[in-house]
Amino acid sequence: MTTATAIISEVEDKARRAKQASRVLAHLPAQVKDAALLKIADALCQKEDEILAANAADMQRAKAQGLSEALLDRLALNFKRIGGMAEGLRQVAALRDPVGEVISGWRRPNGLEVRKVRVPLGVVGLIYEARPNVTIEAAGLCLKSGNAIVLRGGSEAITSNICLANIAGEVAQTAGLPAGCIEIIENTDRAAAQYLMTLREYLDVLIPRGGASLIKSVVENAKVPVIETAEGNCHLYIDASADLDMAVKVTINAKCQRPSVCNAIETLLVHQEVAAAFLPRVARELMAAGVELKGDNPTRRLVSDAKAATEEDWKTEYLDLILAVKVVCDIDEAIAHINRYSTGHSEAIITNDFEAAGRFMEEIDSCAVFVNTTTRFCDGGEIGLGAEIGISTQKIHARGPMGLEALTSYKYLVVGQGQIRS
Amino acid sequence: MTTATAIISEVEDKARRAKQASRVLAHLPAQVKDAALLKIADALCQKEDEILAANAADMQRAKAQGLSEALLDRLALNFKRIGGMAEGLRQVAALRDPVGEVISGWRRPNGLEVRKVRVPLGVVGLIYEARPNVTIEAAGLCLKSGNAIVLRGGSEAITSNICLANIAGEVAQTAGLPAGCIEIIENTDRAAAQYLMTLREYLDVLIPRGGASLIKSVVENAKVPVIETAEGNCHLYIDASADLDMAVKVTINAKCQRPSVCNAIETLLVHQEVAAAFLPRVARELMAAGVELKGDNPTRRLVSDAKAATEEDWKTEYLDLILAVKVVCDIDEAIAHINRYSTGHSEAIITNDFEAAGRFMEEIDSCAVFVNTTTRFCDGGEIGLGAEIGISTQKIHARGPMGLEALTSYKYLVVGQGQIRS
Repeated sequence: MTTATAIISEVEDKARRAKQASRVLAHLPAQVKDAALLKIADALCQKEDEILAANAADMQRAKAQGLSEALLDRLALNFKRIGGMAEGLRQVAALRDPVGEVISGWRRPNGLEVRKVRVPLGVVGLIYEARPNVTIEAAGLCLKSGNAIVLRGGSEAITSNICLANIAGEVAQTAGLPAGCIEIIENTDRAAAQYLMTLREYLDVLIPRGGASLIKSVVENAKVPVIETAEGNCHLYIDASADLDMAVKVTINAKCQRPSVCNAIETLLVHQEVAAAFLPRVARELMAAGVELKGDNPTRRLVSDAKAATEEDWKTEYLDLILAVKVVCDIDEAIAHINRYSTGHSEAIITNDFEAAGRFMEEIDSCAVFVNTTTRFCDGGEIGLGAEIGISTQKIHARGPMGLEALTSYKYLVVGQGQIRS
Repeated sequence: MTTATAIISEVEDKARRAKQASRVLAHLPAQVKDAALLKIADALCQKEDEILAANAADMQRAKAQGLSEALLDRLALNFKRIGGMAEGLRQVAALRDPVGEVISGWRRPNGLEVRKVRVPLGVVGLIYEARPNVTIEAAGLCLKSGNAIVLRGGSEAITSNICLANIAGEVAQTAGLPAGCIEIIENTDRAAAQYLMTLREYLDVLIPRGGASLIKSVVENAKVPVIETAEGNCHLYIDASADLDMAVKVTINAKCQRPSVCNAIETLLVHQEVAAAFLPRVARELMAAGVELKGDNPTRRLVSDAKAATEEDWKTEYLDLILAVKVVCDIDEAIAHINRYSTGHSEAIITNDFEAAGRFMEEIDSCAVFVNTTTRFCDGGEIGLGAEIGISTQKIHARGPMGLEALTSYKYLVVGQGQIRS
C-alpha cells in the first residue's frame, strides 16, 4: 500500500465511522451522554501513569527537536493538568443538554404547527496544534452536544493525543456511546489533514484551532464548511472621560495577565485629552511589568522609552509583552482605527461617557465589545457559556466564544392534518 | 487594460463599495430602511416600461440562443411579475427588523452584564441564475436586515438584472441609504464570479442560488464562507397507518403542484401493508396528471405501467413529472432509505401512528420534516418566516428556509465597572 493510499484509507475509514456514530449519538438522552463524560473523567485520573508515559515520549522528541520553552510548556502534561481535564469534563456534564430544545414554534393560518428544534451538527472535524488538553476538551463538548468528533492534532503531541483519545473512546463505548464517536487521525502527514478537509460526505463542519498559518491553510483548502477561530489583534481605547485608575488597572490586566493568548490587547488607543495624564503613568507600570512599548509620535513625546511604531505594528498580533500605543483625536478616530486594523476579536473602551459607551458598542464590528472591563474576559467560561470549543471571528453560524449551542444546528418540524399547497 | 484586469477591477471596486456601505447600513433605524424599500417598490411600478425593454433584450438573445420554453418562462418579466416584485418588497418592509434584537443576556457572578445582540452579516454575495425577480427579492431582504449586497446573476438575465439593480440602488440612495448598498457585477465572465468568491476582505458570506453545477462550483472554489442552497431529493413515506385519502391527496400535491421546484417529491416510499390498497389508486391519479412512474419490483407487480427503477433513480432529483416508487417493509427501512439517498431537504410521512410520527421527526436528518402534509410547504413564506432568500441544506449557520434572521449574526456586549481577570 502506498503512503497516499494508507492516508486516504485511514482518514476515510475514521470519518465514515464517525458519521455512523453521529446517527446514534444524535438521539441519545442527556443522562447517557453525561454518564459517559463522568466515566471518561474518572478514567483519565485512573490512567494518569499511562497518559504521562505517552506525554513523556512527546516531550522527549520535542526537546530533541529544540522546541521553545513556551511550546514545551503547552505540550507538557502533569497530574494537575490531567485533573484539570477531568474537572472540565465534569463541568460539561453538568451543563444543560442543548439538543431537543424547541427554539421557537407557532401555528400557521392554515393550521400547520411549526417547531424549530435544536439538533447536533453531526460530525465535527477538529484540526489543532500543540496542547493535548484540547483533545479531551473538544471531545467532551462534542459528545455532550450529540456530535461525533474526528480529531487531527499536531505531530508534537501525537502520542499524548492518541493516548487520550483512545482512553476516552474506549470508556465512551463501555458507557453506551457508539463506536466511532471519538476518532483520531494517527497519521501526522499534512496530506491527512488536507484529505480530511475535503470529506463533505462525512464531516458537517471543520474547526481549526491554532496559529494563523494553520487557520489560513484550513480556510483556503477546506471543502467542508469551516468555523474560523482566528487571531486576536485586540484594542483597548481610553476615552477622554475615563476613570484613569480603572484605565491603568485594565490596561495592565489586558496586556500582562497572559500575553500569549488571543484576547490579550495588542494596541492601546488614548484620547488626546487624557494622554498627558495617562500615558506616562501607564507606561511606567507596563515597563515595570516587562512590556516593550511602540508608540506614534505624540506617544513618544510623552513616553521617551517607547520605540517608533510603524504601520506594521497596528496590524500585528504580538502574543508577547509588546504593546503598540497611539494617541487619537476623538472616539471617531479610535473606532475607525479599530474597524480598520482589528481582526474582529475583542475590543474594550474605558469611559464614563454614556454616549461614547453606546457608540463604541454599536459601531465596533468585533465579536465581543467590552465597556469598563478587560478583553481577557472574552472566553466561553468567563462570559457564562460554561465552556468553549474556540472563539469564532467569522460572522456566519457562531461568533465569539463558542459553547455547546455553537455545536448545534436545528431542523423544522411541521405537523398538519392533510393540508396541501394550492 | 486587459480583460483580466478589468474583471478584477470591477469586482474589487464594487465589493469594496459594498463593504463601506455595510458599515453605515448596519446602524440605520428600521424606518429608514423600510421607507427605502417602499420607494423602490413604487419605482419598479413607475419604471415598468424601462424594465420591460431591458427584459425584451434578454428575451431576444435567449430565443436566438434557443433556450428551452421553461427557461424562457423563468426569464420573462411582465406587468404582473413586476407588480409581484413590488408587492414582495412591501411585505418585507412590513416585517420586524431583526437587527438590534437582544437575543439573550445575563449577569455574571462578578457583576459583568452580558448581552448577545443581533447584528447584520455585513456584505452578502449572491451568485444566481436566470430569474431576474431574485435581484429584487434578495436586495430587499439584505437591505431590510442591514446588509449590503453584491449581485452576480447569470448572463441570460444580465440586462434585466442590471436595470433592476440600478433602479433599486438609485432609489435607495435618494431614500438615505449609502451608495454601494446594492452592487451588481456587470461582467458575465465566469472569472468575475470566481474572483468574487475569493474576496474575504469584503464579503462576509456567499449564497449560491441555482442548479447543482453552480452550487458545486461555489462550494469548491469559494474562500468566502458559503451558505449552501442545494438540491432537493425529497421523499414522501406512506406509513401502514396512513389515511389513504389523505395519502393520495398529499402525493399528488407534493409531486404535481409544481414539479420543477426543489421541495417537490422525487421518491414515494410505501409500507408493504398498504401497498396493494394504495399504489394502484395513486398510480392512476399520478398517471392521469402525466407523471411517469419508476418502481421497484413489488411496485411493478401492483402497477404494471411503472418502468423499472435503478439505483440511479433513488439518487435523482428529476424536477419533472417523474416519480420513483419503492415498497418498504417498515418505517425503519423508510428512514434508512431517506437518510441514505436524501439531499437533506424536505421529507414527509403520512401516518396516524403516534410513535411512527415521533420516530420520523426525530430520526430523519433533513432540514424540514413534515407529518401529514406536503413537502411543498418547505418555503419561508409558507412556514411563516415572511420571505426567504433560499433554502439551506447545510447544517452550519442556517438550515431550511432562510428568512431575515439567517441574514444576521450577533455580537457580545459586556459591560463592567472595572473588573479584571485574575
